This record gives sequence, structure tokens and C-alpha cells, in this order.
Amino acid sequence: MSAASTARSFGDRSRRSETLGDQRRPVRSVDEHRRLIEDLLRPLADREGEQVAPGAALDRVLAADVHAPVDLPMFRNSGMDGYAVRAASVAVVPVTLPLAGVVAAGQAGTVPLPEGAAVKVMTGAPIPPGADCVVPVEDTVAGDGVVTVERGRAAGEFVREPGTDVVAGRLLVGAGTRIAARHVAALAAVGLPAVPVRRRIRAVVVSTGDELRPAGAVLEPGQIYNSNGIALAAALTSVGVEVVGVEYSRDDAAEFTRVLESAVAAADFVITSGAVSKGDFEVVKDVLAARGGDFGPVAMQPGGPQGITVVSGIPVLSFPGNPVGTMVSFEVLARPVLRELAGLPPAAGHELPLLAGVRSPAGRRQFLRGLRVADGVDLVSGPGSHLIAAMAQADVLVDIPAEVTEVAAGTTVKVWEL
Amino acid sequence: MSAASTARSFGDRSRRSETLGDQRRPVRSVDEHRRLIEDLLRPLADREGEQVAPGAALDRVLAADVHAPVDLPMFRNSGMDGYAVRAASVAVVPVTLPLAGVVAAGQAGTVPLPEGAAVKVMTGAPIPPGADCVVPVEDTVAGDGVVTVERGRAAGEFVREPGTDVVAGRLLVGAGTRIAARHVAALAAVGLPAVPVRRRIRAVVVSTGDELRPAGAVLEPGQIYNSNGIALAAALTSVGVEVVGVEYSRDDAAEFTRVLESAVAAADFVITSGAVSKGDFEVVKDVLAARGGDFGPVAMQPGGPQGITVVSGIPVLSFPGNPVGTMVSFEVLARPVLRELAGLPPAAGHELPLLAGVRSPAGRRQFLRGLRVADGVDLVSGPGSHLIAAMAQADVLVDIPAEVTEVAAGTTVKVWEL
Repeated sequence: MSAASTARSFGDRSRRSETLGDQRRPVRSVDEHRRLIEDLLRPLADREGEQVAPGAALDRVLAADVHAPVDLPMFRNSGMDGYAVRAASVAVVPVTLPLAGVVAAGQAGTVPLPEGAAVKVMTGAPIPPGADCVVPVEDTVAGDGVVTVERGRAAGEFVREPGTDVVAGRLLVGAGTRIAARHVAALAAVGLPAVPVRRRIRAVVVSTGDELRPAGAVLEPGQIYNSNGIALAAALTSVGVEVVGVEYSRDDAAEFTRVLESAVAAADFVITSGAVSKGDFEVVKDVLAARGGDFGPVAMQPGGPQGITVVSGIPVLSFPGNPVGTMVSFEVLARPVLRELAGLPPAAGHELPLLAGVRSPAGRRQFLRGLRVADGVDLVSGPGSHLIAAMAQADVLVDIPAEVTEVAAGTTVKVWEL
Repeated sequence: MSAASTARSFGDRSRRSETLGDQRRPVRSVDEHRRLIEDLLRPLADREGEQVAPGAALDRVLAADVHAPVDLPMFRNSGMDGYAVRAASVAVVPVTLPLAGVVAAGQAGTVPLPEGAAVKVMTGAPIPPGADCVVPVEDTVAGDGVVTVERGRAAGEFVREPGTDVVAGRLLVGAGTRIAARHVAALAAVGLPAVPVRRRIRAVVVSTGDELRPAGAVLEPGQIYNSNGIALAAALTSVGVEVVGVEYSRDDAAEFTRVLESAVAAADFVITSGAVSKGDFEVVKDVLAARGGDFGPVAMQPGGPQGITVVSGIPVLSFPGNPVGTMVSFEVLARPVLRELAGLPPAAGHELPLLAGVRSPAGRRQFLRGLRVADGVDLVSGPGSHLIAAMAQADVLVDIPAEVTEVAAGTTVKVWEL
């Protein structure tokens, strides 16, 4: 398929309304369609959260502010292995002080420091009452029942005061934070056995098509391997969604209806792939349009035919079945809001020169598959929505605006990291 | 602890050799110590891989090149819902052609196209022998046993030829690739039931210290909550390591030895935290130095005291027990090679202006915790290695070179994303 013929084709289509069951609606922009999806999915963030141990909270999103239940440090302790003394005792050095005891980390250390003496303390051990600084062990020479201090210290040196890291009651980690290892460390350090996190979003994926066969099957003529289901499941997993089903339906309304019903019973949202276009066997569109679904063209290539339905309160996103159309639909329409729900920053966009020129369909925002190279971005394939092997070579989507029909070599284009 | 006193303290220490069991060795640079760790861990990439289904391969690293076992497309098929015709039959339009049949996706479509006729084809359906192009349905008007074509097409238009995405035998996804959803899609599309991936690296974490208590425990005086174990586990998990144990040992040589033995039996490598410094109860250093461990100072703050031991062929990395020292040790010394083993790109580094000036110890590379703001980077705390709550507020490590003792406000510094 030449770029020129594609351009003419989609140019024609974009100037039409299309029949959608009983309704006609104009072509919708990518941004408008994405906003509809976002409006359906964003409320999933507001469901009641659950409590998990800090060690199980990695990559979860904190559902509420967590305040420190205790001071950190919880008690006055030593920042070094050394000797707790009064600074006045080591004002003139060298000086030899009697050793009044040893406090390891984990010991109570409540025996007061006698005037003019030293208590050996390990890092993290409580500072004995009366001591006001710690002389590091490397500035001392140990003797028999005594220690010689070779260097003085001022009051406060190597003493960690309670609350100097965080004060009890202060914000420790804020609501909406995606929990990384450093947050786990802080949450564990204050001793919290559990923290409130958003429930993981559950999704079911349903791929459709009589032509689809599972991996390893011997194919009959006309059949292909089913890739959309597991590829969508992987994409969902990569943004923290819990995929609770990867289902399949033949192009059969009764079968698809059964699969759909069990999907909406199990999931917070459902993605279907295939059977949304203008063929004779568009089971997804037929079944869901009859249940109030909004099906029609979105001004994008690939991924033009799209559907949104709410079934029993559960959003059902219907993507086209061409493998690249499916994946680009996910990247463009679903991943942004799912990243937001996962507490992730928006996908990085860059402005890069497109190294070879390209034509693009009028009236369709085109997402070409590109690979970043030293000088800019190369396209890895033509626009065909079946070029799924080529997409594996890509690391960006090249975003050509709907009104642009030709991009000259060297023109700066917007690209989105895959 | 003032920055000035810290500077003096570590300045002194960096000019000494230190006693390490029976040995003395000079202070080691961060890069040198990291290289030793990398040399121990990098061979883990070369172990024999395992086979997993493409749907289970997300975020795994491909252990060998995968070549396409079939062409994609596997057969000549339609790029549109429309009518397969000979281009010559639609050279003059409008033209009404007899309808010779319908081929849905998944049907064999081996009935040849009669001269001067049309066969309705759905997207992905085989092109009937004899047809050379597809007229999209929107350019046609269906009649009773006929179709009127309103627009001509050239030979090849909307026909997907076999092997135009990938040719059988060609590289599909290369060894070392970290598998994303788009790779899953490509691997599934060629029907592979399994692909070779590197075995996940298994680690056991062992935190030590009589002062440590689990979350939720009621603390006795001098005790604190154990955060290093689960924080290290989270950090390891975040780079694809399978944490097969989060263990704890009191400061007791026999207990630590038992925990160590079971850790090295279960893991590809082990990380310990705590008991590596110059106190009286350094169980990790004592036990491991006696087994040939290399313990001593690394010119970094926090994280100065470090150990590396190979026990029964298993690398054991010994980090200091201060919570920030533990986490910074992981970030600086272990995460880079673990990212590499996970097929991830190196952590992003940036050059940003440091908004407030800071002093830094001579002879120690300092990693301060910073937060990126509009104009540069702010420090979120002082240098103390116990400031773990503050570290939760940070998003970068600010990397102050060992030879720098003072950074003026506004100076550009290197920062590493956490």
C-alpha cells in the first residue's frame, strides 16, 4: 500500500459521517476520544483503598497521606562508633578519660555518663544521659579501662537528636505517590505495619476473530496467531493494571455476549480488540452498539474505528483488531490515563528531526513507528496497521498532526516514547 | 552535625589506611569498588536461560536472538473491508460487477476470482486468487448480487503481501532486549509458544542488628524498626531481581553464619546490611572477613564502609546499616549493573544548578539527596546517613566529586535520578 493511496483513502473518509447502527456522528478527534476514555477511567482512582505492608507496596499508589507516627530518630543516638563524652571533658587534648561502660545499638543506654568519663557507643546506640557529643573511635586510643581522646569535639557533634529527620505527625509520604524503594524505607523506618494504597485496577482483555488461533496451533488457510490479547495484557501489566482475564471470542454474538458478561463481572474495565469496523461480521460493534455503545471513527491512523460502551457500570473500550491498530490505540488512548492512575509521570515526549520525509493522510493524526538514532528519528516501517514485527523495532511513536499531509526530511516532529 | 565538622571528620579519615581484620588497604574509589561488584554480578547474565510463553515474558530479557519462524503476513490478505477485484475491472468507474462470494477473516478464500467479478473480503481475509487489489467498502454501493464500484484502484492497493512485515528466518527480537508489550505482540504474532529468556536473578537480603525490630512491634529503649531489609528487597524488585528471602540476624556470629549459609544456598547473590564498620560488634565483617571477605572503606558518603565476599561461589555484598547508607550503596554500587542485567538503560543523569551552596568532605564522593525544582535542584536534608524520612522526599542523588569541598550556590552539579 503506497503512502499516497493511503492518504487519498483516509482523506476521503474523514470528510464523511459514518453510519453507526442507527446513528450518524462526525469523525472525532484523538484528543476528544481520549478525554471520553479518561473521564470513564479516572474515577477508578477514587475507589476505597486497601491496606498493605510497606514491603508489599512497591509501585502501588498511596491512597492517603501518611504521617509519621513517631519521631525519627526516635531517641538521641550516636552517629558514629566512638565515645560519648561531655565536650568540656575533651576541650584540651590529648586527654585520657575513664571508661564507664559500653552501649551497643539496641541497648537501652540509660546509665548516665559520670562527670569526666567516657562511654563507648556504637553507631545508632542511645547517647547516655549527660553526654553531649561523640568522639569517633578513629580519634582515640583505647587503654585498659580508659580511653585517650586525641581530638576534641563540640557539643552536638555526632549526636543525632530525636525528630531531626521527621517529627511525629508530619507528612511522611503524600497521597498519590507511586511507592519506590526509598518510600518503602521511610514507611518501614517509622514502624508502620500497613499503609493505605489504591486498589489495583483489574482489567479483562477480550480479543475477537474467527481467524485467530493460539500460539503453537497448526494453522488452517486464512488463520493467524492471536497476538492482541496477550500483547494488550502485557501493556496493561506494564502500567500496574492487574489483568484478571485474557479471553477470546469467535465472531459470534452469543459467544461474545457470554464472554463480555463474565468480563464485566470480573473487571473494573474491559478492552476488546477487533470487530469494530465496516465489515459484515463486526460482532463487537453489533453487540455493544445495541447496548448503547458509541462506535465510530476517530481521526487517527492506525486505530481509526473505535468504540466506548458502559456495560453494567463497567467501561468497555473497543479497539480495532489490526495488531498495530490495537497497540497504538492502547498507547494513545489508554496508556496516558493509566499512567496517571498508576502514579507515573506522563510518557516522555521529544521533538526530533524526522530523517526521511513522509506523506500523511489528510484529516487523520498519524502515529508512525520510529526509532531514535543519533541525528533524529528513523521510521521503522510504512503506515500499515498490520506491521507488528516492525513495531517491535520501534522505540517511539512519531506523531503527525491531522492537518499535515507531507513532512519533509529533516523536519522536527513530536515523538512519544514507547 | 554541621557540614563543617563532617568535612573535617571524613577529611581526616580519608588520609589513613584502616585496619581490616589482619589486612590494611587504602581507601578505594567508588568507581573501583563498583567495578569489583560488576565483575562479580555481570556473569549472571550468561547462565543458561529458560523458556517462557510470550505472555509471561514482559520485562524479562531475551537470552538469544529470536528469528521469525514464518513470514508475516503469512498469506496475501486484505488491508480493508471491501471488494477484491482485478484493477483492470475497475479502470473505468462507476462500474457494476457481479458478486462472486464473500470471504471473512479466518476463511480459506481459495475460490478464484472469476474474470470481471468481485469478491467481498473483510480486513485480514485471504485475497482470492486472481484478484490484485481491494476496493474499500466506502467506495462502493452494494446491490442484489452485484456491487457498484465508484472509484478505481491500482494493482496492489490494500493488498498485504506475505513477508512484507517480516520474512521467515529474519531477526524478530534481538538477544538482550528487555521485553515490552510491543515485543510480546511480535513474538505472539509469529505463533511462538515460548521464547528464551534469561533466568531471573535471585537475591536474598540479610539485615543485621540487635537494635532492629519488625514493623508493629512495641519497642524497648534503644530499639528501632527494621527498614533496610524490605527497602533493599523493594529496590532489588524494582530492577527485576527475584527476592527469595528477606532475612534478619542478631549481632551473633553463629546466628549470622546460619542465616548466611541458607542465603547463599538459595540465591545468586546476597546483600547484607549493617555490622561492617569499626564498632565492637561487627558480626558481618567479622564472619565474612574470616572467610576471605574484602572489607574496608570506600571513598563515599554515605556508604563508606563496604564489604565484598564470595561464599560458596555466591557474591555477598555487605552494605553499612545506616538506612540512607544502605540505600545509597544500592543506588551507586549495585543498581547500575542490575539495570544492565535487566536490559534497562543506564539511570538518567542530568547536570543541574544546585540552588543552595554546600560543603563536602575532602576525599569522599558525596551523594546528597536532592529534589528537582523548576530552576535546578534543592537539597532535601543534610548529609546524615540516618535521614531516611528525608530521603523519601528526594528524587535525585546529587553527586559531589571526592576532591570538591565546597559547592557555591548556582554551581552546576551532576544528579542521578532515583
